[in-house]
Amino acid sequence: MILINGENQSQLAISDRGFQYGDGLFETIEVLNSHLIFFEQHLQRLALGCEKLLIPFPDKQLLIHEATALSQNIKRGVLKIIITRGSGGRGYRFPDVIQPTRIVSLHPFPEYSPDFQQHGIVARICQQRLGLNPTFAGLKTLNRLEQVLARAEWNNPEIQEGILLDLNGCVIEGTMSNLFFVKNNTLYTPLLTQTGIAGIMRDFVLQTASAEGIQIEQGCFSLEQLCAADEIFLTNSIIGIWPVKDLPGFKNLAGFNAHVGEITKTLQSKLAQYKQQVYQHDN
Amino acid sequence: MILINGENQSQLAISDRGFQYGDGLFETIEVLNSHLIFFEQHLQRLALGCEKLLIPFPDKQLLIHEATALSQNIKRGVLKIIITRGSGGRGYRFPDVIQPTRIVSLHPFPEYSPDFQQHGIVARICQQRLGLNPTFAGLKTLNRLEQVLARAEWNNPEIQEGILLDLNGCVIEGTMSNLFFVKNNTLYTPLLTQTGIAGIMRDFVLQTASAEGIQIEQGCFSLEQLCAADEIFLTNSIIGIWPVKDLPGFKNLAGFNAHVGEITKTLQSKLAQYKQQVYQHDN
Repeated sequence: MILINGENQSQLAISDRGFQYGDGLFETIEVLNSHLIFFEQHLQRLALGCEKLLIPFPDKQLLIHEATALSQNIKRGVLKIIITRGSGGRGYRFPDVIQPTRIVSLHPFPEYSPDFQQHGIVARICQQRLGLNPTFAGLKTLNRLEQVLARAEWNNPEIQEGILLDLNGCVIEGTMSNLFFVKNNTLYTPLLTQTGIAGIMRDFVLQTASAEGIQIEQGCFSLEQLCAADEIFLTNSIIGIWPVKDLPGFKNLAGFNAHVGEITKTLQSKLAQYKQQVYQHDN
Repeated sequence: MILINGENQSQLAISDRGFQYGDGLFETIEVLNSHLIFFEQHLQRLALGCEKLLIPFPDKQLLIHEATALSQNIKRGVLKIIITRGSGGRGYRFPDVIQPTRIVSLHPFPEYSPDFQQHGIVARICQQRLGLNPTFAGLKTLNRLEQVLARAEWNNPEIQEGILLDLNGCVIEGTMSNLFFVKNNTLYTPLLTQTGIAGIMRDFVLQTASAEGIQIEQGCFSLEQLCAADEIFLTNSIIGIWPVKDLPGFKNLAGFNAHVGEITKTLQSKLAQYKQQVYQHDN
């Protein structure tokens, strides 16, 4: 089911600037028992992105109405929202009056093994580097060629995610997830001021860790620092929190084959509690 | 007139990865008296881009056939070719069998004053910086948000183009054009290994200058070096060669109000000759 500006359609004019230039943004939201998880946070990030790209934010109530309608009676799914600058303008120059395109679509929830959360995943280090671009750092824009090429580096179904460094050699994130690691009870995550996407789940983890009194450091961290970690995990709105048990050739977190690190477990448990309290009380 | 995979259509599935991720490339080609100017060069760049992005290049004869058909009896126009990775895959991961989308469309030639070529244009220096991304440097991908935001910096119709620096402070190019300058009879143009689009007209200028025995230097040049130039000009496949007569607040090439620099004039004249010989002999 796809709503394009409120109409049930699946096609869009190729003149749309989302298609011509990647001139837009998107959000990917978990649907659980008809609820949209962290919906307000996703809408806030979308609004921030629109502000930075100078795209007028669509009518929020309309967006909420459409997203909620598509999520009704859905036990588990993924809702995607795309906002583009619409059609018009001359070349890169956009028109004086922008009429954004609003696309809301529902998709099946990906079939991830429960084992990924419980015992961790295997991740690899990608060859592809993330370029530096402070203007768009943090935003989930439609310009995603780096992620596409990084994800093309492997076909092995045993490997669930690839981790990218930026041009400066800082570890940044996974192709579709944010990166955290723990060393001596401090939680580390890359600063996303030069590149990367600031995930909603990343925010949840940072806030939760802070509330738990866990020390947090954001900065530029090397692959060596990552490999010296006691715990490593990846996050996004759909996968939640995936411990990394192995980075073949770089780091085998041997203990993770048997158990997941303490801080990782605490954060997973807080996430489960949060979803339980907020979204499942009426089910 | 728009041909999508050979069919006369104007809409595309929103599942197309060109729309979802900017997962594709494009070319913009001048049509003159039914001829496609520098067509072979555009096709070569497109093929190179497809190779780098791992998109199978569409049937070349088909592409030539469609582009030629759309250009028939067109006195002057712009032909745009877009190639995307098509639909399918799972998230950023593309499918094992890629079926590219091929879009060929014809557009009116922009109404540029002949004065721009004859006496030069006014350009500005943009605030927006170009990010660094060697993977895509040189390529005309569908990830063009930087150009969109740069072009949004001004509305003054007296200003025809904006010049961008990269994050390192090197001058790189215009929002829609490549940048050249002349100092003491040497022709300078930014090296496009970290960012920028390597234009077909840029190649023509470099080859022509070389054949004329003009010394050429490619490298990282500062705004100060640009402002110390004897001549500045911008190129693309549609505008040809536009002298820059004024960079308000930075450089007024006073002489250019009366005349265009010698090397600029030589190159403009060679371009005109080339188009006359190759494309107009049968008209």
